[in-house]
Amino acid sequence: MQLRLAIIGFGVVGQGVAKILCERKEQLKSRYGADLIITAISDVKKGAVADPQGLDPSALLQHLETHPDLTSFPAPDRGWDALTTIRKADADVVVEVSWTDVKTGGAALGHLREAFACGKHVVTTNKGPMVVAPWEMLEAAARAGVEFRFEGTVMSGTPVINTAWRCLRGCEITGFSGILNGTTNFMLTRMEQGLTYQQALEEAQRLGYAEADPSGDVLGWDAAGKVVILANTVLRKPLKLEEVELASGITEITPAHIEEARRACERWKLVAQAHVEDGKVMASVLARRVPLSDPVAGVMGPTNAITFRTDLLGPVTIVGAGAGQKETAFAVISDLLDIHATLVAKQA
Amino acid sequence: MQLRLAIIGFGVVGQGVAKILCERKEQLKSRYGADLIITAISDVKKGAVADPQGLDPSALLQHLETHPDLTSFPAPDRGWDALTTIRKADADVVVEVSWTDVKTGGAALGHLREAFACGKHVVTTNKGPMVVAPWEMLEAAARAGVEFRFEGTVMSGTPVINTAWRCLRGCEITGFSGILNGTTNFMLTRMEQGLTYQQALEEAQRLGYAEADPSGDVLGWDAAGKVVILANTVLRKPLKLEEVELASGITEITPAHIEEARRACERWKLVAQAHVEDGKVMASVLARRVPLSDPVAGVMGPTNAITFRTDLLGPVTIVGAGAGQKETAFAVISDLLDIHATLVAKQA
Repeated sequence: MQLRLAIIGFGVVGQGVAKILCERKEQLKSRYGADLIITAISDVKKGAVADPQGLDPSALLQHLETHPDLTSFPAPDRGWDALTTIRKADADVVVEVSWTDVKTGGAALGHLREAFACGKHVVTTNKGPMVVAPWEMLEAAARAGVEFRFEGTVMSGTPVINTAWRCLRGCEITGFSGILNGTTNFMLTRMEQGLTYQQALEEAQRLGYAEADPSGDVLGWDAAGKVVILANTVLRKPLKLEEVELASGITEITPAHIEEARRACERWKLVAQAHVEDGKVMASVLARRVPLSDPVAGVMGPTNAITFRTDLLGPVTIVGAGAGQKETAFAVISDLLDIHATLVAKQA
Repeated sequence: MQLRLAIIGFGVVGQGVAKILCERKEQLKSRYGADLIITAISDVKKGAVADPQGLDPSALLQHLETHPDLTSFPAPDRGWDALTTIRKADADVVVEVSWTDVKTGGAALGHLREAFACGKHVVTTNKGPMVVAPWEMLEAAARAGVEFRFEGTVMSGTPVINTAWRCLRGCEITGFSGILNGTTNFMLTRMEQGLTYQQALEEAQRLGYAEADPSGDVLGWDAAGKVVILANTVLRKPLKLEEVELASGITEITPAHIEEARRACERWKLVAQAHVEDGKVMASVLARRVPLSDPVAGVMGPTNAITFRTDLLGPVTIVGAGAGQKETAFAVISDLLDIHATLVAKQA
């Protein structure tokens, strides 16, 4: 079955999706029967192009190697802003991978609202709308009768939300804890290897793990956003960003702290957790010393991990990539294939 | 939607399924719309009962508390053997949870063949048929146009096969390695705590982890069976049990070996693995010293773990229960809910 895609945002993740389609469009078609065709792209900085016949992903990427944007890329329709693209593009699925703002939801909130209003399926890796208005989004999708997937909002393409929704169906998930921010975990790993906080931060910035303003990572806001998404969608309990207990993140951890933990056979980790207590979610993102025997203690570098606590199955832990272009773009591909399989089943 | 179940085998797992249905039949109905009704049970030792109106799971379990079998349990139909039950029971799904024989497939092989021939959906936790004839089973299910799930054959209800099939779609899974036998991992953990091999084995037998004849576990055959299932169904490459490299399992590990590993910051694990080399699967189950920094090194006691190697996402590790009545019965419930969701989608 054909799935025509309108991609909103053509930065790291959007281009990552195009890269995967360059490499394995035919394989996805032959193996899963999913014919994924980009019919529109709209990006605030790179411009917008649309072609109901399909845009060639490799031509798009090549164009951006030699041009700053897509304004001179040949296409029958061009210059549409995001909302116009969502409304007018010949697309089945809106892939929302634009700029993330976990405090307000950003423009992405409007993009998702418009997509649902137009009856389009939606795949997003954008935490903004799912932190700020998770229930509104879930309900809008249900009301519109469309498919909605957002695996890439937590731990990139590592299957966390889909595993909880699909494969743990029938269990009661009563809480979770884990390492949901790769930048800080990388920094803590490097600090154990002898770097100071400042040196570890500079290295993380040099490697592209941390942004120029690292506060979202190091203070715990990024992890807290993921806790909010998981609490609302997996625990299915309302939780707002401001309700997550945050302290100073990892900013106050010194070499002396690291050494003290090592002597006690423990290790500092920025632990994100939420659990249900008397029907209410209690959530926090706090730097903690965890014993080396703890399953998350062995999770090093930019790797992430989450342990779901379940009633029938006990703890289930998933460890995998927390970020990365290919890894997050894979979340989009995986969600698209899941929507495809669902639509095929409905057609049968 | 109603799903009527014919349960073949009413031992630990079959009764576990009945227990879960006692506790949360109504919840499964209200939350997922799945109305799971047992219409037939057939067990070689406990006898057989069938009622198209449904058998009460709590009455069945209560009966077995005071009777050796079901021969005096009130039901309109009784005494049907497994094949007759599969043919005649008023059931949508055959739940095959009878005795496992990984060398020949056992009676379960015939049960699955008959179920597919009768056009019934199938859920099984029985390794036998999926070790001996995985492709025949998959093809028979496809030909019959029925749903077929077998999550419980590997790591009980911990989502491994369904995660690989559903949530890693779009990735190339090129290999896996992990700890797929809980008994031996429990024994190795106890040996690190000072027990000899013989003491650890006796404790495992006392706790019900190991059978009277423990050779299936300690020599690696149980783990090898799981490797075969995963190679055929997840790597999608043919592999036979006799092609898995096996040595002496954990039977030759001594306290001196354990101590030597400890001094090197390593730990003995029975590592099950398979990977694709030149298009062919190379597989083994071997006791190995793994560095403490290895993700599987921290997996202790009866817990199991598997790491899938993928091209787009890198390594993805899943850690969870490897066995247990409730945990394996959950695999059946989870698979039934997945079949239910698929059938509902098809109806829409």
